[in-house]
Amino acid sequence: MRFLSAGQSHGEALAGILSEFPSVVEINTDFINDELKSRQAGFGRGARMSIEKDSVSILSGVSKGKTTGAPISFLIKNLDWDNWKDRLDIEEDITNPRPGHADLTGMIKFRLKSARDVIERSSARETAVRVVAGSFAKLFLLNFNIFTLSYVEQIGNICIDEDSYRLNIKKNFNPVKNVFDKSLIDKISASMLRCPDEIVTAKMIKLIKNTAKQSDTLGGSFRVFATGISAGLGSFSQWDTRLDAKITASIMSIPSVKAVAFGNGLNAGFLRGTEFHDEIFYSREEGFF
Amino acid sequence: MRFLSAGQSHGEALAGILSEFPSVVEINTDFINDELKSRQAGFGRGARMSIEKDSVSILSGVSKGKTTGAPISFLIKNLDWDNWKDRLDIEEDITNPRPGHADLTGMIKFRLKSARDVIERSSARETAVRVVAGSFAKLFLLNFNIFTLSYVEQIGNICIDEDSYRLNIKKNFNPVKNVFDKSLIDKISASMLRCPDEIVTAKMIKLIKNTAKQSDTLGGSFRVFATGISAGLGSFSQWDTRLDAKITASIMSIPSVKAVAFGNGLNAGFLRGTEFHDEIFYSREEGFF
Amino acid sequence: MRFLSAGQSHGEALAGILSEFPSVVEINTDFINDELKSRQAGFGRGARMSIEKDSVSILSGVSKGKTTGAPISFLIKNLDWDNWKDRLDIEEDITNPRPGHADLTGMIKFRLKSARDVIERSSARETAVRVVAGSFAKLFLLNFNIFTLSYVEQIGNICIDEDSYRLNIKKNFNPVKNVFDKSLIDKISASMLRCPDEIVTAKMIKLIKNTAKQSDTLGGSFRVFATGISAGLGSFSQWDTRLDAKITASIMSIPSVKAVAFGNGLNAGFLRGTEFHDEIFYSREEGFF
Amino acid sequence: MRFLSAGQSHGEALAGILSEFPSVVEINTDFINDELKSRQAGFGRGARMSIEKDSVSILSGVSKGKTTGAPISFLIKNLDWDNWKDRLDIEEDITNPRPGHADLTGMIKFRLKSARDVIERSSARETAVRVVAGSFAKLFLLNFNIFTLSYVEQIGNICIDEDSYRLNIKKNFNPVKNVFDKSLIDKISASMLRCPDEIVTAKMIKLIKNTAKQSDTLGGSFRVFATGISAGLGSFSQWDTRLDAKITASIMSIPSVKAVAFGNGLNAGFLRGTEFHDEIFYSREEGFF
Repeated sequence: MRFLSAGQSHGEALAGILSEFPSVVEINTDFINDELKSRQAGFGRGARMSIEKDSVSILSGVSKGKTTGAPISFLIKNLDWDNWKDRLDIEEDITNPRPGHADLTGMIKFRLKSARDVIERSSARETAVRVVAGSFAKLFLLNFNIFTLSYVEQIGNICIDEDSYRLNIKKNFNPVKNVFDKSLIDKISASMLRCPDEIVTAKMIKLIKNTAKQSDTLGGSFRVFATGISAGLGSFSQWDTRLDAKITASIMSIPSVKAVAFGNGLNAGFLRGTEFHDEIFYSREEGFF
Repeated sequence: MRFLSAGQSHGEALAGILSEFPSVVEINTDFINDELKSRQAGFGRGARMSIEKDSVSILSGVSKGKTTGAPISFLIKNLDWDNWKDRLDIEEDITNPRPGHADLTGMIKFRLKSARDVIERSSARETAVRVVAGSFAKLFLLNFNIFTLSYVEQIGNICIDEDSYRLNIKKNFNPVKNVFDKSLIDKISASMLRCPDEIVTAKMIKLIKNTAKQSDTLGGSFRVFATGISAGLGSFSQWDTRLDAKITASIMSIPSVKAVAFGNGLNAGFLRGTEFHDEIFYSREEGFF
Repeated sequence: MRFLSAGQSHGEALAGILSEFPSVVEINTDFINDELKSRQAGFGRGARMSIEKDSVSILSGVSKGKTTGAPISFLIKNLDWDNWKDRLDIEEDITNPRPGHADLTGMIKFRLKSARDVIERSSARETAVRVVAGSFAKLFLLNFNIFTLSYVEQIGNICIDEDSYRLNIKKNFNPVKNVFDKSLIDKISASMLRCPDEIVTAKMIKLIKNTAKQSDTLGGSFRVFATGISAGLGSFSQWDTRLDAKITASIMSIPSVKAVAFGNGLNAGFLRGTEFHDEIFYSREEGFF
Repeated sequence: MRFLSAGQSHGEALAGILSEFPSVVEINTDFINDELKSRQAGFGRGARMSIEKDSVSILSGVSKGKTTGAPISFLIKNLDWDNWKDRLDIEEDITNPRPGHADLTGMIKFRLKSARDVIERSSARETAVRVVAGSFAKLFLLNFNIFTLSYVEQIGNICIDEDSYRLNIKKNFNPVKNVFDKSLIDKISASMLRCPDEIVTAKMIKLIKNTAKQSDTLGGSFRVFATGISAGLGSFSQWDTRLDAKITASIMSIPSVKAVAFGNGLNAGFLRGTEFHDEIFYSREEGFF
């Protein structure tokens, strides 16, 4: 499966092509738009999020609600394009590159006098295209009872009690239906920050407000779960086919991500083998776990 | 440039092919063998490390000490192959998969009764092939004054004073010759654990000894520096061409690695934007820094 | 450089993304639309050619008339989409697969009851997207004085005097400006069949008319020239990097093409080495030729 | 599945790695060596063919006669390496590039004073590595009752009666066992030129002898059949996934090949649609044919 994304932050539209996607997969456009909406949620983000109400328009590859095996192409129109199209032609050069962004590197790489073209493409707005591609993947994986769940676990020095949440997810996970706890999903959706803990969410929002007053920004972290994965996806056979390497690359390619870890990987350096590794159990009823 | 690796842990030889490698690059076989030797250094590792004295034999792509543009193929012979070739044919099935390894997953993936074939390929011994490929890359990058340096900064709860080392590297870095401090490199080479601090090395060795007595293992972390990199390697233009994503994937594909971070990325969640980001400076003499 | 195409023959639009295209290349939309128009020229082709007046709309990757290094995405709208969108939803299954088309294979591959989805994507209309991608390539190659020229040399048993044309091209080629003879290009453009010979064109048209009356179709052949190519493009170093293999694949992937040859390759079987191979000459003024 | 080849014509060994090859495929080394022997058969070829008796040595990826899913690496040793290793170091520059070879192009591409390094890699000897890779593919395809057959149909102006042979193959093909006629295969193997017709073979040998006396060479053509192919291999969905494009590229990448055609493709220009296309038939017993 190949995926290319295109489009500028303030261009007419973002575009994507997903090639070699399996056929006969049911595609629910509302689901994709909900995913786009989740991406735009949050608190304390740029004003633009409230201007853009992203929605996908599928140009090809889907017929009568199902994929046909033909390449899937889609657009996400930039609703403020009308405000920008003339402005971009006349604006002055942007010569003040921002730290922590690709501005300077991009200007050197492409020998530009203005950072404009760099900003347009290196912008995190591009991730909207990935959300659509990811939605197609999720709709495909539904057929195999594979689900993913993600939440924010930390903003600045405010963290949820990670251990209890992980235990909770394990405890409330429904192994027959292979799904996550519905009430957990609802709590995440209800939080402006997609954090499963209401009290922690409130503290985070307060911290964000205070930090913003000081004209500063905050880091944080999020956790992603997947269930129903067949053992043996990816492969140790060749250096670049390992599943953890592939997952890491796709997450690290999100502009703001600076570290990626698996399981308790962030603490792996401090732990002994007997603490870090999961024992392997087997029962006739549940198989390996 | 494409790279494929092959070979089993206890097979006749490991093999690699490096295709589309630039021509007219000087190749020093001693340098490659020294790199292989560094890989085998360490303390408290399996007994095998002292049996295998890896050395590369280059089959093609190098003529009269320089690359020709033809694919580079090479072997690393397994010196204990004679002990193993008959043994592998008659050994009993390995049915006790190890936690933290690919044994169980591999057995399910390839429908095997014994973990032997999984162990043979998922083994970290495969990284010897990557060391050779990486050595070719280093010899190529020499021509651009690009150097890399790596050291162990943590074993269990014993860490070097990371901040002082980073400052030290910056301070002693020779911007004219574009090289790292020679005395630092010597200290790293002198340490059995490739840790630049002699006293910390001693503590780490003691910890390893004690942990081994308890039949346990330890985690740790290492840091990699590179200097002389041109701004603009990699690209933000497409999701999978970002340099940090590519670097992360190649490091995460090392079997024992469970987390990868850039700069101060492991702490990014706790830091404010003003603390995390590096300011951009420019001087006529030194350019951007 | 990566290129993905998408779109159905009777869908809303065809779409393409061209990723990793060099920056600062001047893009002339009129040139691209002229190329699309050339593709639609011809005599005796389906009625549809006169309905569709293809034109490209570039969504991203080009700013102020130049590429920015960001992925180029573009659409070619299907002008008869309004006539089709409802029709496709209600039409009966197409169960009569055409010989010489992908209809039957596609129905088996994708387990379809109707050939509709196969026809939509396997249609030669998809080549319009390639024409746009090829136009971008041509505009890039202009910067290196690399030009291509193609013409129809045969329809059924009517051929141009191929040898005299090739000699003519060689004789009239301007080695200083590195361009083809202007009058030849004009003759090709003037011919409804893009055949450089007026009298032959007339004969071909007559043959096409007569064959159409008998409800039959005709084969033919075309020749492509390129000039200004640097020696050493492609590589013999690896089996899949050879230039002739790559060129052949891209031409063979055009639905109606069933044979590809280089130079006098179609007759290579009948010729001796001394007849087939070109001698190598060298002069101080002109270099190798 | 990825495949890289390496090795020089007069180097120590040719090498290949075949990655992501399926597991549990039975591998018969004698079969691979027979295929290598077939490659070396012929009449009127260079003297070297009688020096080299190629045989494969498999280094990894096969255990107890079956593939393990690990990358397959193999060597074909150059038996005259001992004669060459010193000679290559001291030989004079080769400054007389041969027409019809990569010598001149390669010298320009890699800025070489001698054509030696070009000759070493662009040599058709590299195809021995492809024969081994192809043998692995054949052994895999056996499991699906997919067989290939090839023969020489033309040398210079001596051709077999192609139509009668094609009819013969169709007539004698065993649709139950899905195999080619045994007596045809025997005839091909018995011919020094792999031509199925004894009388034609004799004529071809005579022509080769006469041409060699005149210090000239001959062209020719060969035909490849495959049986048991599932409908739907390859895909029309994306321009570069079409099966005919992929097959063409791999055949055109053989150094001496200058034209590739499917079915009656060489004559397609002269034929009408009703003559060229195969009608589609269906019977309950035999399916589509």
